[in-house]
Amino acid sequence: MTHSIHAGAGASRRHFLKTSGALLAAGGAWASTTGEAFAAKASAKPLSGKIRIARNQVVLFQGDSITDAGRSRDKAGMANDQSALGGGYAAMAAAGLLLDHPDHGLKIYNRGISGNKVFQLTERWESDCLKLQPGLVSILIGVNDFWHTLSGGYKGNVETYERDYRALVQRTLEALPGVGLVICEPFVLRSGAVNDKWFPEFDKYRKVSRSIANDFRALFVPFQLAFDRAVKYAPADHWAKDGVHPSAAGAALMAHTWRSYVQHRGAP
Amino acid sequence: MTHSIHAGAGASRRHFLKTSGALLAAGGAWASTTGEAFAAKASAKPLSGKIRIARNQVVLFQGDSITDAGRSRDKAGMANDQSALGGGYAAMAAAGLLLDHPDHGLKIYNRGISGNKVFQLTERWESDCLKLQPGLVSILIGVNDFWHTLSGGYKGNVETYERDYRALVQRTLEALPGVGLVICEPFVLRSGAVNDKWFPEFDKYRKVSRSIANDFRALFVPFQLAFDRAVKYAPADHWAKDGVHPSAAGAALMAHTWRSYVQHRGAP
Repeated sequence: MTHSIHAGAGASRRHFLKTSGALLAAGGAWASTTGEAFAAKASAKPLSGKIRIARNQVVLFQGDSITDAGRSRDKAGMANDQSALGGGYAAMAAAGLLLDHPDHGLKIYNRGISGNKVFQLTERWESDCLKLQPGLVSILIGVNDFWHTLSGGYKGNVETYERDYRALVQRTLEALPGVGLVICEPFVLRSGAVNDKWFPEFDKYRKVSRSIANDFRALFVPFQLAFDRAVKYAPADHWAKDGVHPSAAGAALMAHTWRSYVQHRGAP
Repeated sequence: MTHSIHAGAGASRRHFLKTSGALLAAGGAWASTTGEAFAAKASAKPLSGKIRIARNQVVLFQGDSITDAGRSRDKAGMANDQSALGGGYAAMAAAGLLLDHPDHGLKIYNRGISGNKVFQLTERWESDCLKLQPGLVSILIGVNDFWHTLSGGYKGNVETYERDYRALVQRTLEALPGVGLVICEPFVLRSGAVNDKWFPEFDKYRKVSRSIANDFRALFVPFQLAFDRAVKYAPADHWAKDGVHPSAAGAALMAHTWRSYVQHRGAP
């Protein structure tokens, strides 16, 4: 009997993760891949807060449906609760943190809400962020800020997004001195709902998120890069059928990417 | 600025996973830890089916609430669907498989149902296992077979469990020649609902699951061992508040353990 789980295409998987790993380790070097040369600047500055997992620290995931991922509203007040964390990347990253740091007394919350744009985060920031006194805040917001201009009658634009997002970050850093701030890049895949109408306009939102991370010295997680690489190994719909909402595989890729950046980029 | 995510207790975490890894690599050698010397026999026999991840293969997770973990019934027919996979170890292991093997066209289902005992798996085995034609079946069943004798008025005992479980496995191997079969050890932690009344009776159910795996040459995943080690790093309620249902951290530990055994134990 052979037990050949790693035979054949196993090699391509190892190549995939190894390549991603090499990119992660290289930090800003991947900027040349995307042609966004300004990205290298971000890594040259120290971060504004300490990205670390401290004892009894509150960790907060914030965002839209991608973060929400079906989380229980009833249990939203319970830290580390499986149903309160939802079924997406935030839950997987949280579970990984709790496995990695079993003795830290971490309190992890997910407060993503489906459909949210940045101004809606602003409206609920007091109760759904500041009040929780997080030591680490991770934000993923932006896809609806553009998408809803196509399909939802939303009148905002990329300037609205940038203005609101900068104000939100400013407010967060003032209210929570020393907070570790993670800004995740909004992303799409060319599949399902995502067609040519999205480009190049959507790319501006991605660049705004990166420039805010840079200006406020937050840790930036380049999800678009992760998915751009992933589609070389499986079609877009393996990772996100409608191009916006990640599949289980897409969520696992995001959690892997998030943890790689948050846990290793800050290493000495 | 320092980014000291791995400072301090990071060392204990590395020790934890490194130790687990060493145990995993040692295979049957850990039997001496638990005193269950017969365990070493299991690793000496070839497995009945090929434990592998083949192209277009159906992978099925079966069990009780621990597997169920809030999965969507409406979407149960959709392979790889985030909500259909639930929020527990099965979803995390599935997402990991889909990330590791993006080009394999895997179809992964979760058909765990909360409260199930082994006879209830038997009742729905045709529609919830055989009909799906899985190439890999992972079963975790047994905690309710004992628990419900304490609190639910259930009249079965460990002989019932063994007889029904053996018949189920026999039927599976006859209906699906060459199927890769994974038998997961039922487990509890001394917390919440789990008190002295559980022992030593519950241990018999664990041993039955191991002996069935051994006799039918299935791959055995010793979850009790994983949790017995984990409680040295954090209290039982970090891993499973009521002693039965894993937390997010407990589910992540299970997914890590499952993937380590299923993916590496079979390696040359």
